Amino acid sequence: MVSGKPGVAKRQLILLTGRAHPELAEAVAKHLGVAITPQAAYDFANGEIFVRFEESVRGADAFVMQSHCAPVNDWLMEQLLMVDSLKRASAKRITAVVPSYPYARQDRKYAGREPVSARLVADMFKTAGADRIVTVDLHTAQAQGFFDGPVDHLHAMWLLCEHVRGRYQGEDLTIVSPDAGRTRLAEKWADLLGGCPIAFIHKTRDPLRPNEITSNRVVGDVEGRTCVVVDDMIDTAMTSTTAARQLLEQGAKDVVLVATHGVLSGEAHDRLIASKAREVILTDTLPIPHEKRFPGLTVLSIAPLLARAIGEVFEDGSVTSLFDGNA
Amino acid sequence: MVSGKPGVAKRQLILLTGRAHPELAEAVAKHLGVAITPQAAYDFANGEIFVRFEESVRGADAFVMQSHCAPVNDWLMEQLLMVDSLKRASAKRITAVVPSYPYARQDRKYAGREPVSARLVADMFKTAGADRIVTVDLHTAQAQGFFDGPVDHLHAMWLLCEHVRGRYQGEDLTIVSPDAGRTRLAEKWADLLGGCPIAFIHKTRDPLRPNEITSNRVVGDVEGRTCVVVDDMIDTAMTSTTAARQLLEQGAKDVVLVATHGVLSGEAHDRLIASKAREVILTDTLPIPHEKRFPGLTVLSIAPLLARAIGEVFEDGSVTSLFDGNA
Amino acid sequence: MVSGKPGVAKRQLILLTGRAHPELAEAVAKHLGVAITPQAAYDFANGEIFVRFEESVRGADAFVMQSHCAPVNDWLMEQLLMVDSLKRASAKRITAVVPSYPYARQDRKYAGREPVSARLVADMFKTAGADRIVTVDLHTAQAQGFFDGPVDHLHAMWLLCEHVRGRYQGEDLTIVSPDAGRTRLAEKWADLLGGCPIAFIHKTRDPLRPNEITSNRVVGDVEGRTCVVVDDMIDTAMTSTTAARQLLEQGAKDVVLVATHGVLSGEAHDRLIASKAREVILTDTLPIPHEKRFPGLTVLSIAPLLARAIGEVFEDGSVTSLFDGNA
Amino acid sequence: MVSGKPGVAKRQLILLTGRAHPELAEAVAKHLGVAITPQAAYDFANGEIFVRFEESVRGADAFVMQSHCAPVNDWLMEQLLMVDSLKRASAKRITAVVPSYPYARQDRKYAGREPVSARLVADMFKTAGADRIVTVDLHTAQAQGFFDGPVDHLHAMWLLCEHVRGRYQGEDLTIVSPDAGRTRLAEKWADLLGGCPIAFIHKTRDPLRPNEITSNRVVGDVEGRTCVVVDDMIDTAMTSTTAARQLLEQGAKDVVLVATHGVLSGEAHDRLIASKAREVILTDTLPIPHEKRFPGLTVLSIAPLLARAIGEVFEDGSVTSLFDGNA
Amino acid sequence: MVSGKPGVAKRQLILLTGRAHPELAEAVAKHLGVAITPQAAYDFANGEIFVRFEESVRGADAFVMQSHCAPVNDWLMEQLLMVDSLKRASAKRITAVVPSYPYARQDRKYAGREPVSARLVADMFKTAGADRIVTVDLHTAQAQGFFDGPVDHLHAMWLLCEHVRGRYQGEDLTIVSPDAGRTRLAEKWADLLGGCPIAFIHKTRDPLRPNEITSNRVVGDVEGRTCVVVDDMIDTAMTSTTAARQLLEQGAKDVVLVATHGVLSGEAHDRLIASKAREVILTDTLPIPHEKRFPGLTVLSIAPLLARAIGEVFEDGSVTSLFDGNA
Amino acid sequence: MVSGKPGVAKRQLILLTGRAHPELAEAVAKHLGVAITPQAAYDFANGEIFVRFEESVRGADAFVMQSHCAPVNDWLMEQLLMVDSLKRASAKRITAVVPSYPYARQDRKYAGREPVSARLVADMFKTAGADRIVTVDLHTAQAQGFFDGPVDHLHAMWLLCEHVRGRYQGEDLTIVSPDAGRTRLAEKWADLLGGCPIAFIHKTRDPLRPNEITSNRVVGDVEGRTCVVVDDMIDTAMTSTTAARQLLEQGAKDVVLVATHGVLSGEAHDRLIASKAREVILTDTLPIPHEKRFPGLTVLSIAPLLARAIGEVFEDGSVTSLFDGNA
Repeated sequence: MVSGKPGVAKRQLILLTGRAHPELAEAVAKHLGVAITPQAAYDFANGEIFVRFEESVRGADAFVMQSHCAPVNDWLMEQLLMVDSLKRASAKRITAVVPSYPYARQDRKYAGREPVSARLVADMFKTAGADRIVTVDLHTAQAQGFFDGPVDHLHAMWLLCEHVRGRYQGEDLTIVSPDAGRTRLAEKWADLLGGCPIAFIHKTRDPLRPNEITSNRVVGDVEGRTCVVVDDMIDTAMTSTTAARQLLEQGAKDVVLVATHGVLSGEAHDRLIASKAREVILTDTLPIPHEKRFPGLTVLSIAPLLARAIGEVFEDGSVTSLFDGNA
Repeated sequence: MVSGKPGVAKRQLILLTGRAHPELAEAVAKHLGVAITPQAAYDFANGEIFVRFEESVRGADAFVMQSHCAPVNDWLMEQLLMVDSLKRASAKRITAVVPSYPYARQDRKYAGREPVSARLVADMFKTAGADRIVTVDLHTAQAQGFFDGPVDHLHAMWLLCEHVRGRYQGEDLTIVSPDAGRTRLAEKWADLLGGCPIAFIHKTRDPLRPNEITSNRVVGDVEGRTCVVVDDMIDTAMTSTTAARQLLEQGAKDVVLVATHGVLSGEAHDRLIASKAREVILTDTLPIPHEKRFPGLTVLSIAPLLARAIGEVFEDGSVTSLFDGNA
Repeated sequence: MVSGKPGVAKRQLILLTGRAHPELAEAVAKHLGVAITPQAAYDFANGEIFVRFEESVRGADAFVMQSHCAPVNDWLMEQLLMVDSLKRASAKRITAVVPSYPYARQDRKYAGREPVSARLVADMFKTAGADRIVTVDLHTAQAQGFFDGPVDHLHAMWLLCEHVRGRYQGEDLTIVSPDAGRTRLAEKWADLLGGCPIAFIHKTRDPLRPNEITSNRVVGDVEGRTCVVVDDMIDTAMTSTTAARQLLEQGAKDVVLVATHGVLSGEAHDRLIASKAREVILTDTLPIPHEKRFPGLTVLSIAPLLARAIGEVFEDGSVTSLFDGNA
Repeated sequence: MVSGKPGVAKRQLILLTGRAHPELAEAVAKHLGVAITPQAAYDFANGEIFVRFEESVRGADAFVMQSHCAPVNDWLMEQLLMVDSLKRASAKRITAVVPSYPYARQDRKYAGREPVSARLVADMFKTAGADRIVTVDLHTAQAQGFFDGPVDHLHAMWLLCEHVRGRYQGEDLTIVSPDAGRTRLAEKWADLLGGCPIAFIHKTRDPLRPNEITSNRVVGDVEGRTCVVVDDMIDTAMTSTTAARQLLEQGAKDVVLVATHGVLSGEAHDRLIASKAREVILTDTLPIPHEKRFPGLTVLSIAPLLARAIGEVFEDGSVTSLFDGNA
Repeated sequence: MVSGKPGVAKRQLILLTGRAHPELAEAVAKHLGVAITPQAAYDFANGEIFVRFEESVRGADAFVMQSHCAPVNDWLMEQLLMVDSLKRASAKRITAVVPSYPYARQDRKYAGREPVSARLVADMFKTAGADRIVTVDLHTAQAQGFFDGPVDHLHAMWLLCEHVRGRYQGEDLTIVSPDAGRTRLAEKWADLLGGCPIAFIHKTRDPLRPNEITSNRVVGDVEGRTCVVVDDMIDTAMTSTTAARQLLEQGAKDVVLVATHGVLSGEAHDRLIASKAREVILTDTLPIPHEKRFPGLTVLSIAPLLARAIGEVFEDGSVTSLFDGNA
Repeated sequence: MVSGKPGVAKRQLILLTGRAHPELAEAVAKHLGVAITPQAAYDFANGEIFVRFEESVRGADAFVMQSHCAPVNDWLMEQLLMVDSLKRASAKRITAVVPSYPYARQDRKYAGREPVSARLVADMFKTAGADRIVTVDLHTAQAQGFFDGPVDHLHAMWLLCEHVRGRYQGEDLTIVSPDAGRTRLAEKWADLLGGCPIAFIHKTRDPLRPNEITSNRVVGDVEGRTCVVVDDMIDTAMTSTTAARQLLEQGAKDVVLVATHGVLSGEAHDRLIASKAREVILTDTLPIPHEKRFPGLTVLSIAPLLARAIGEVFEDGSVTSLFDGNA
């Protein structure tokens, strides 16, 4: 018999994960002191995905983690199906935890008749039933406005910066943006590192053939300095290794490549090894399997940051406080 | 200079296709007498898809075709991105042509804490910007109600039935449903073929282990008869080839397997060859590549049906009239 | 004075009922140990309905019960007005309890230019402000996907089955579907009853006159057996009494008619009495007034099942657990 | 074969009607020079309504007429099902023509915990798929803002006023509001009739028993004058016949009762006959069957006004122009 | 570390205010015993407004107060930006407290091709993220139906009435509506004051020039009586001071002007002083700065009423109870 | 009488303008060869705005222009009310033409608990009824994704660039971004001008006091060169005049300031005159009144670009084609 008298609302944090990067979810779970909710998930032969939670999620404050590495459309669909299941199974609140937001680069039409894929992804999360999103280092911060609801946009910069500061203290650093679009990020790094100079690679194009870069010029002071090239992601590593070569040609003493998201697709692994970069620093927002690792690659764990953010969301604390007022 | 005086609204039918099954789109285009609108579409290394139309689509009545074979999530995402592009590029009306609706089988929760994937897919089409859907032989007709807008639900039954009638005239036919859930379809076939008997395979399960079939019994009159097993799709071919064996064991003279959608995943090809089925009849709503074909397999083209439906939608004619009042 | 310090969220289960079937609501209230929230409800002379709750519902977890017997549009509108009132009076969560979903049979277009009424009803509940739906034995399970939110789809099969098992133990049972569309349900019953055979009535139609049934054939083994005809509802009783006659003509020893929803409209009462059915078994999802009752009619109470489901929803327990993993 | 070349958009006005008041629809159709689109519509025994159009409506500019007399919930549901059918059958634009808006009086909460039924009705039309509404003399004009789209709000005042002017020219008229809430309407009538005086009935209530009227006082100059009592509707006729008695008691020479909507429910017919009203003037927005008619009742046809509005909507003309700038 | 075990939902009432009328918010805060959440808010040179809360609002039950005096569009935009910030900063529930609803007078189209501004404002609150609205004395009560959610519509009548009763006890009162549209309000006042007579000013217009009033007539008994003119707002004071003059000309002994909202724009201050009104009574839903005050103006505080309503909303109590069943 | 036979859809382009910048609308109208639709628009004393169109807009393809200069909230609200009026008056399609998008700079949360104002503005346009947006040079291109529908994002770069090319041909140009965030824009300019070098101003901040800039350094080659400082807007002119000073101090030969939007608020006028800039080049997306003009200021007309885009939208042509594939 159910008492009709006033009760007290229970709330329970549950953590769920898709199959893209279970290690990261495990690490987050450990930090939070919770167990991941078990689920069945498998593919039908034609690629359709099936999911089913093995425990009741009714009334829960659910956090659904998924990393969006290749095959990105499968992992996106899996997460959407999990969100739909949670909605229909009466979870109280659903947070999609998206350490590396899919389609983040297509955040506007670069030419006519293109999609704005990052907005479509935000709308798909909303349609499936997500109440909020937790993500790390969007390609452009404006994309947080694509979602109609709260977005906790975390930054890995402090984590990465602390590592750089620890290892390269005393050297003459220049922060380098590998193209004109990341110069503002380089500026922030320079401030955090106490005011070192910044530079960027100026790419020139023929306006009639906009996809063809005709030359690269380094703008700024790099000669004899340790150049820290900062970016949001390293995908094919073409941009960053070209920057490294250019910088070394211009007399840079050393090059360090830093990025939050290690997509590392195609020949990235070989390019990075072939580059003369002294160190490549990434986080594990995306899985970096054994065969893509190499000496000189440092992978920092994003799990503590995600765990603290999830904890604050659950406890209604301030996520902003995690980041010295910058989140 | 633009005249401010009243003009006359132009409308143009344009046909676009994703990369899953361009041959079907080409066949439809030929029937319609139009050219497929050219587009760039390619995958980034991490699986993200990019699309861009190479001609203006402003004001057009756009039909976006995609077949949802493996890898189904990629083809679904590609079609959604195409719809989003059309919306943002000011197409007047957008029809998603989905010959084989993805996730059609997960049209309800079979147990608690599952998604209703087919509804999610419908909502995703809506969110991306689709105004209407044209599809063929949904797993259950109720799924047409998942989309908030017009759905033209076409049937391949007449096409398939005409083929069967032509080839097996004069034989003693029994229409067989391979499980209890398709008996109503078998009944419709029996009526169309002039009133032949029907049968179905009764599967018994232990309620405590519902996924395990303990035995199969044929219910209905099959001895000495040509059994036509009808279904909406042949996926792994386990269901249909088991039915074929059962029927032959019960004394059926011959078995013909018929379905609209040839998913043919995993060992389907080998199973169908190994079965003693006299003929396997499918349509090409899904691509059936050369290596999956075999003697005894008949593939009927769905293109004329799709082309007529698209034409009627464009001309505001009656799609219902295509199907003798049954669409 | 209100304290600005953190408080604790209270929650209160309240149960409300429309005027269609107050006895069922009273029975549920008794099981839950709550009192039904009093309300004023009356009709204006032109049929417009007025409702007003007589106690505050602010912040409550509200369950609004209504059975959808004739006049079904009035009872639907009354329930929608109650939901609207709850929304505007700040109820925290609103669950529409719909033991017998209205317009469940029109869950797809059977021909062109028809409504999908069951989807419209789902959308109307959403528009009025319902957060979730609790219902029993939808005509097709797919209709649960029509509602954009959690649907707890309960099944009366265990309740009905237990009664049949108790009373007919030891007899040779065949489970019969009265038409081709319910064969899957018959299969489930057969499994629950330990593996008895199943049968169905094959109706043949002239495709040119699809509404005219030209003959009925029993498919399956019924001679000398006790035939249990299972369906989701008995409306005019034409289908079930025709089946009963057919089965007896084919040599069945006895016929038992079973259904969840007893619509019993028109001449149903007389037809059932005239049929030679040994027993007719229904639940009280719909009111079965005294004048429609007769010897041989058994009405099982659905109240305990509804009460347990409501309790679990309120307590955030698992409704799935109520049904051995099948809800 | 369909030409891919630019075509010209066809548009076709189609007129449909529910079963509540087909005579009005016929009259409108005649004015428009169109035939009503044939449809099947019938009730199932439990009150569920089925509708199906018998001709293609694809691409049409559809106007769906329904009058909302008793049983109002049935006629509302029928109209919503028709709108849903039109949407799913690809009508280009759907206008709900609602001569007498249902639930217009419950346009706000009069006390706590009541519905705002008129808003719910507007949302239901939107949910079903109506693009616009054409209606006549809403109980309060504010209700036009309940619908999220164009509302053409027509007024019968000119029609009624012209009749009064013609028949009572030369008499000393006072326009009377039967309660305090319609005084503004009386003022508009007085202006249209060239500046005659106005009056109203002041009802006093005990604030502790707000539903009980303790007395009625006529405020304004009525002695020896022909009093024209104006209202939006006559439902039970209690308000208007009480006003008539009061006015005659206060020395009025004659009383004429005027209203747009003749609900005439309950004892209205008898009350109106028993009143000493010289004439009762209504329009036929609602059907007024033979048995409710009596000498002294004048029924003016609203069909010409509706037909002109529908024509202007179809032709994209100005509905406002119909009403001298007051629509 | 966050415990995965069930916790207890905390809730916290926070009160925020825009810059339009901070004194009212302070008074409400004092009644509630809370401090106003500090925020930064300033204007950019082009008029764009920036807001930022200086404390976490995550999980809070937030009440955002703003009065909508001139410049009304700035104060509306500021409140919308605050609501958007709260939504994106994860407030649990957001209530817009709008003591004087902006654009309340444009609650319908008075002629064709006008906006329904009050509905647009309601939709803008919804779009920004408001869950509910608390407001006082809407221009017409129907506007509460414009918002898709709970609206607590408070009335200042009791407060104002008590003041009038206290000061004018023993005098012969007539309640006067300054135009035909407020007569129902006058009737309510008359009832509350124990049944005194009512009157209104009848304005006549030439229908061909509807904006020009050709004469005013007092309808009702005012000679030798203390006339209390009641309205929802005093804006330019043209209506009320014209009424005062008219009443005094018709022999009224005294005139008292009463309204909830003191807009007091343009020459209102001078007009009110020049009028012979014995007293002007307003509330402070809008700020009434020192320079607009004058002897004979009484301003009653609305803060206790707002504070009690906010407290009841937070505590899930009954706001209706505040108003003797009339809210 | 209206013909029920198929007609042909008429379409009419109408151009409407708010009161912020009628000169621009007039110029656009002239290019399009249309007259601006007349409307009444005025402010009530409390700042509420009233609008009414003086001609029928039913069925029209309506373009509503407004420039968002100070007081920006008034002009935004005026445009929203115009859109709402058009929607309710049955315009067929509504395009908001927004040459300078309001709140474009607040396109993301810079710190926690801030609004995303640019997204809110997009949603408000949608809520009011806008189908599409035409705008020029958004602060960041990502904001086009905030609107759920087509956005034609025009660029003034070609116009501005052609002017610079014409006047400064033969000089040694360096394109300068006034801060790190506009470097990508400088790169595009450099490409268009045939490959000249670029530079930017590096601002350093103390991370503990992020709003305080501690120093500015020029990064890139500027000595002896004509520096063209490019930005999207000049508001207070602090950024651009500081850049000018810095560049001249670093040995630049000359400084030219270029931006699309001339907000010119506060002391901008004086600062620009005091700066040693050789020329300041703006467009007239915002009104630049006589008193803000000065020798050395060049204002280019944006009207031809807007007119061509509106014309293409109306004619369903390709807006992309206007911009060499870059729109």
